[in-house]
Amino acid sequence: MKRLLLVLFCLSAAVGSRSQELANFARSAPVVSPEIGETTVTFRISAPQAKLVRLYGSWMASGNSSVNMVRDSLGVWSVSVQRPAPEIYTYNFIVDGLTVNDANNIFTQRDGNRYMSVLLVPGELTENYFEANQRGNLSRVWYDSPTIGLKRRMFVYTPYGYDTSGKDYPVLYLLHGAGGDEDAWSTMGRARQILDNLIEKGLAVPMICVMPNGNPGQQAAQTLMLEQKTFDRNDPNNVNLYVRSLVNDIIPYIESHYRAIPDRSARALSGLSMGGGHTTAASIAFPGTFDYILPLSAGMGGDAATIDPQLQKVKAAGYKLYWLACGTDDFAFPNNQNLDAALTRNGMEHTFFITGGGHTWANWRIYLNTFARLLFK
Amino acid sequence: MKRLLLVLFCLSAAVGSRSQELANFARSAPVVSPEIGETTVTFRISAPQAKLVRLYGSWMASGNSSVNMVRDSLGVWSVSVQRPAPEIYTYNFIVDGLTVNDANNIFTQRDGNRYMSVLLVPGELTENYFEANQRGNLSRVWYDSPTIGLKRRMFVYTPYGYDTSGKDYPVLYLLHGAGGDEDAWSTMGRARQILDNLIEKGLAVPMICVMPNGNPGQQAAQTLMLEQKTFDRNDPNNVNLYVRSLVNDIIPYIESHYRAIPDRSARALSGLSMGGGHTTAASIAFPGTFDYILPLSAGMGGDAATIDPQLQKVKAAGYKLYWLACGTDDFAFPNNQNLDAALTRNGMEHTFFITGGGHTWANWRIYLNTFARLLFK
Repeated sequence: MKRLLLVLFCLSAAVGSRSQELANFARSAPVVSPEIGETTVTFRISAPQAKLVRLYGSWMASGNSSVNMVRDSLGVWSVSVQRPAPEIYTYNFIVDGLTVNDANNIFTQRDGNRYMSVLLVPGELTENYFEANQRGNLSRVWYDSPTIGLKRRMFVYTPYGYDTSGKDYPVLYLLHGAGGDEDAWSTMGRARQILDNLIEKGLAVPMICVMPNGNPGQQAAQTLMLEQKTFDRNDPNNVNLYVRSLVNDIIPYIESHYRAIPDRSARALSGLSMGGGHTTAASIAFPGTFDYILPLSAGMGGDAATIDPQLQKVKAAGYKLYWLACGTDDFAFPNNQNLDAALTRNGMEHTFFITGGGHTWANWRIYLNTFARLLFK
Repeated sequence: MKRLLLVLFCLSAAVGSRSQELANFARSAPVVSPEIGETTVTFRISAPQAKLVRLYGSWMASGNSSVNMVRDSLGVWSVSVQRPAPEIYTYNFIVDGLTVNDANNIFTQRDGNRYMSVLLVPGELTENYFEANQRGNLSRVWYDSPTIGLKRRMFVYTPYGYDTSGKDYPVLYLLHGAGGDEDAWSTMGRARQILDNLIEKGLAVPMICVMPNGNPGQQAAQTLMLEQKTFDRNDPNNVNLYVRSLVNDIIPYIESHYRAIPDRSARALSGLSMGGGHTTAASIAFPGTFDYILPLSAGMGGDAATIDPQLQKVKAAGYKLYWLACGTDDFAFPNNQNLDAALTRNGMEHTFFITGGGHTWANWRIYLNTFARLLFK
């Protein structure tokens, strides 16, 4: 009743005439959106006064590819589209030119400072993006970073059974890209679900996963509205600032606060885009720290004279797995080809995992779902 | 650049003609909203094609109290309103009758299945709703509930210093109301910020705070889209189902997995509305379990013949603090008066904390900010 009154109240605030209130009451049956059918997906939005409503989904070809929706007599607009291939997509409505999210869809994701409605299409590819039966815990953890001079937040995943097993665990450090923050891998990346599923199926070794914030001036995601610090990039004291905080602040914190195996053989480092840059940078600045090095959609620029001496440091320290991944449509693909060639040229064993697609979360989820099976074995 | 292209792309998808794309580019300077000034708050939304845009905020008198916004030449609508008193408010825009959130405000809250834009007005009352300097960790924890037959999720707050102090802590069990879930107290309730601030200022004892999900059929918040279980309320096996799971499943989990003091003197139970009902029910079904009993906006119905024998059980077991709180405009106020009178009639020491206002998160934040200072002392 409380909720119904609230709905009526909002509607009356929005419309403001008695007769329209009653009309709104008639249409207050819940609008279901999105509705995933066998072969179609139906989207709906109540917008009685709109003249033109369109749907745009990230599965559509780029360009002016939104589709028109059709109004019913109560002002609910709808459209059924062919069910896209299994994946996680984002979408929005365009109501008389205004981009809005789907108010009837509780599944939203934040990318930087934008919220987006999400469509998760079931299928083989997305199987591990759904909830497993055995789920690990996800903690928002504050730690002190003397290197950066801030208290900072990271997300820490502990696998199912961690609390009672008494065992020590290996750790995957999983880094986000530019525009992201410590929340990105667990929301857009579905990292908890992917690791839960792989571990439950016995396809991955139970591991801790640490997702820090890679923007050194930020204490935490912008949602907390904390003051930010700025760093002069030209100041030599700030070279590799975040990478140094990762190795000197975060790793010691994790290895002293969790039952983490404090050994290179139990440390993996992966990141996407900017986080892939952090990954290669950390492997070079701190050779021998991580036995698993997995830059995603990043690669390395530079010619042999620049790149080879750096890679030789990694080679000299040794590693168990060097695994780079990129989509052929990704703007970072040439840099990945460059790193692939450089690793070969330097006689360094590695895997170059090439997919279709571009610089997208679709790819980064696939990469995690793939490489997590290779770690700590 | 990537982000700019994305913006252009979305705009072009929305508008679809070359000239309008260029017009949109001109207006793609970031729209700032909300902007909190000394005496006013300004709200803005870009909606070039709209005919009428209004603002509704929860600080406005109920009824048709939304205010018109004014369009500038680029299609950005804005309005400056008198800065409301310090509080956390929600608001939305009404664009030609369509209720939409503020896409330029990263601060949103979810209430059940609705997302809302949030305005946090600074001031004395809201001081503890902002981030403290010393922050506790918040974990999303899965536990097994044999009582309910589900794996379920709760949020667990551990205070600043928990990881290194080696000390044992008292525990506040903090319950949400109908329509809420385990996320409600940390987002809408600002529980982490309130406890962080009170503890940092030395006004509250460092404590663990456990925020479970009070809907027994739910494994976790709806955002996880997990299957729900239904329970027949008329089945005598289901009486006090959630309350029994709280005492028989959750408390043992917390006291075995955390450094929680396993004693009634170190257990407080509070909840709002339905959670206040859970609080009184638990105090009666499990007398002597909690030394601190704090039902908010709930009270108890029933006459002396019904209520007195129940309260006598609580009295016989003893307690340190019985603290009920309600707003005078709350529909639960008569039930609070009823409980207040019953406690007096039964010779049970208690505090009836009466405020203005209704059945609102504004009040529940104030209550937590008040009673947390009284616990475990």
